[in-house]
Amino acid sequence: MKAYIEANKERFFEELFSLLRIPSVSSLPEHGPDMQRCAERLVELLMEAGADEAAVYPTTGHPVVFGKKIIDPSLPTVLVYGHMDVQPVDPIELWKSDPFEPEIRDGAIYARGANDDKGQLFMHIKAFEYLVRSGKLRHNVKFIFEGEEEIGSPSLAPWAKEHKDLLAADIILVSDTTMISEEVPSINCGMRGLSYVEVKVTGPNKDLHSGHYGGAVANPINVLCDMISSLIDKEGHITVKGFYDEVVELSDEDRAKLGRAPFNLEEYKNFLDINEVKGEKGYTTLERVGIRPCLDVCGIWGGYTGFGAKTVLPSEAHAKISMRLVPNQDSATITKLFAEHFKAIAPDYVKVEVTPCHGGDGFLIPISSKAYQAASKAMTEVYGIEPVPARGGGSIPILADLQRILGIDPLLMGFGLERDTIHSPNESYLLKQLFAGMESIALFYQYY
Amino acid sequence: MKAYIEANKERFFEELFSLLRIPSVSSLPEHGPDMQRCAERLVELLMEAGADEAAVYPTTGHPVVFGKKIIDPSLPTVLVYGHMDVQPVDPIELWKSDPFEPEIRDGAIYARGANDDKGQLFMHIKAFEYLVRSGKLRHNVKFIFEGEEEIGSPSLAPWAKEHKDLLAADIILVSDTTMISEEVPSINCGMRGLSYVEVKVTGPNKDLHSGHYGGAVANPINVLCDMISSLIDKEGHITVKGFYDEVVELSDEDRAKLGRAPFNLEEYKNFLDINEVKGEKGYTTLERVGIRPCLDVCGIWGGYTGFGAKTVLPSEAHAKISMRLVPNQDSATITKLFAEHFKAIAPDYVKVEVTPCHGGDGFLIPISSKAYQAASKAMTEVYGIEPVPARGGGSIPILADLQRILGIDPLLMGFGLERDTIHSPNESYLLKQLFAGMESIALFYQYY
Repeated sequence: MKAYIEANKERFFEELFSLLRIPSVSSLPEHGPDMQRCAERLVELLMEAGADEAAVYPTTGHPVVFGKKIIDPSLPTVLVYGHMDVQPVDPIELWKSDPFEPEIRDGAIYARGANDDKGQLFMHIKAFEYLVRSGKLRHNVKFIFEGEEEIGSPSLAPWAKEHKDLLAADIILVSDTTMISEEVPSINCGMRGLSYVEVKVTGPNKDLHSGHYGGAVANPINVLCDMISSLIDKEGHITVKGFYDEVVELSDEDRAKLGRAPFNLEEYKNFLDINEVKGEKGYTTLERVGIRPCLDVCGIWGGYTGFGAKTVLPSEAHAKISMRLVPNQDSATITKLFAEHFKAIAPDYVKVEVTPCHGGDGFLIPISSKAYQAASKAMTEVYGIEPVPARGGGSIPILADLQRILGIDPLLMGFGLERDTIHSPNESYLLKQLFAGMESIALFYQYY
Repeated sequence: MKAYIEANKERFFEELFSLLRIPSVSSLPEHGPDMQRCAERLVELLMEAGADEAAVYPTTGHPVVFGKKIIDPSLPTVLVYGHMDVQPVDPIELWKSDPFEPEIRDGAIYARGANDDKGQLFMHIKAFEYLVRSGKLRHNVKFIFEGEEEIGSPSLAPWAKEHKDLLAADIILVSDTTMISEEVPSINCGMRGLSYVEVKVTGPNKDLHSGHYGGAVANPINVLCDMISSLIDKEGHITVKGFYDEVVELSDEDRAKLGRAPFNLEEYKNFLDINEVKGEKGYTTLERVGIRPCLDVCGIWGGYTGFGAKTVLPSEAHAKISMRLVPNQDSATITKLFAEHFKAIAPDYVKVEVTPCHGGDGFLIPISSKAYQAASKAMTEVYGIEPVPARGGGSIPILADLQRILGIDPLLMGFGLERDTIHSPNESYLLKQLFAGMESIALFYQYY
């Protein structure tokens, strides 16, 4: 497919940029029309690439795009999953170029969604196009692109339940993850789940003058800090009661296998400009993100946050807390345990509220599967080195749902890199990964 | 003066409202022109009230207003201090009426500055006007109104040093505090000082995907919460090294005297809608705000604070921390001790910065003084009950400075009430306090 890429490169850029220019931020209600535009553009691209049919389907939330090409019902069917929605762009002032006006700099595309996931789903459309046009397609192919991955996919699971026949396939193929490094290709064989909650701590019923009340009335920000601080103990364990009950401890053998992934702690620290890493005692950095759950405050706010000094003892303090879960931890159960725990540790002098935001379970896929082996062979050919089986720290909660609803395993061939800084300012995607991904995907079909 | 108030009430409202309509928010640079307008309006009001001269004086920051009437240099001179600047109005959505369009509802004026301090300084101008017009003035009177009280008065102390002769007087008279309750008048005989700092905790050099890094890299919000939580121990003591070194412990006798102030804990809790108060072990609520220092987070922010769920491990977390100090604690020393402590407790995996915002020392004034006794007599006459000597929790740092620079004591006759919610939305000032304040001030001159 190398020659095909070379011959069509400029058109590919134009097509991908047309997607990246649409600000399809799923978490902000004002971007509803952009979700629709983005869905319609994907339908066009699928049809142009050779799909028999493709359409925008309404859901209870943002729409989904479904398209397919059935060449012979008796042949195996590949279901490609991707998501067209993106994360918000703030802090916008840190972007070097407009997040919705893609720019190629130093061999990479810079834009919100350049990697996650518009850039990665685009590789699948182009590999499919190549197979169709070159007459090499030997599978039925279906595409499902959703618009709510970044907000926990609330509508896709119910939609998938109603459209099980439409989605019937032998494997779910996904590119929405990263490789270990530019030189070390990897295939994710497991992902963490997620429980994401918003908490609110209320002290006095109004903002107070910190001089008149300070020292005598509990300050909800101080109390929130105390409560958050108590959620992780000195050894890095999460203190929520029952949190680890369902966590499967890996065998030493499995840990050794995962430990083969190349990792350089000094490079890692340099890349992040930190003097020290921090995490659960008894686990390596890769284990901490791969096989262990964690708890992070993703946002906190309360009181006066403007310029200068305002002496206020505020009425409320808020935080957004994300818990990354490992396979076997049930997201709904963890959310419930967290809410119970957080309320239980709240002191008498404040009131607390816990609002579940989104969540999803983790999952594991067998390395011995035909699909994993085909992907491994394809990537070995493209990268000249056998990909490492890895456990991903991120979450694609909907994949665990689809696995359960459709009864088929997902395979995660991700081509992102750490340097792409997805979810952050200046998200990018290396051109060489974009093209290597297209080649790997095309070869996957050959070996599957 | 009762009859004079009755006859001139409508004009008084018009004049006070003309001040309240000017958004003189000192902490926001865009309100610079409003500070100037407010100063000019005060000059007009002073001249109309009967001052010999009044003018706006530039400083290194916002301007000050100085005016005076000298009837006989051999008579005692009263220096009235007030401030024309106000706090920011956020959260603006909680205001029931425009903060800069005063409204009279249920016997109170609602506006930013209605009490703090435009309403209170206005009482002094009107009491002065009454004394002048009724031929009863038997003192020289000087007025100094500054525009930076809410940001720590950075320019007034240097200005006062340069204008010591201009400000020479026998007593500094101030209305910028509260009474214990509507029924229990009080006079502040001490105020807490302040040290206000902003802190910044930096983890990784960019926002990270919380799935890819969560659990392995220190999250600066979690770390900031840990650090803040450690600043106050289980018994409510501040853990900053050396923090209490200069705090003077009151004798049991003095504590008993202060304890005579009426205070109803149930009413206090009901007013704030809290189930429990919280503070330093071994002290009563009034002692906690009156004679003990405290530490409060006035603002905190970091990560994603918008709508919905964004899974980010942020690069930075911030907080604004206020420490209220008691007499004998030096603000600059405490700020230094805090900065040293905060840096000392920072773990290896983050970097911290501490920026001093503003500060000032506390002070004490003798109950036996002629001025205190005159104020007590005046308020007894107006309220029908002897005012209680109280220790104020708030800070007017500049008063300690003026006391030192000019060598004269300040006397705090404040007429605000807790219900006025200064610094908060819907700040108000009761008309009956406005008028009782004018009467008390006019009588003060009679007995001083």
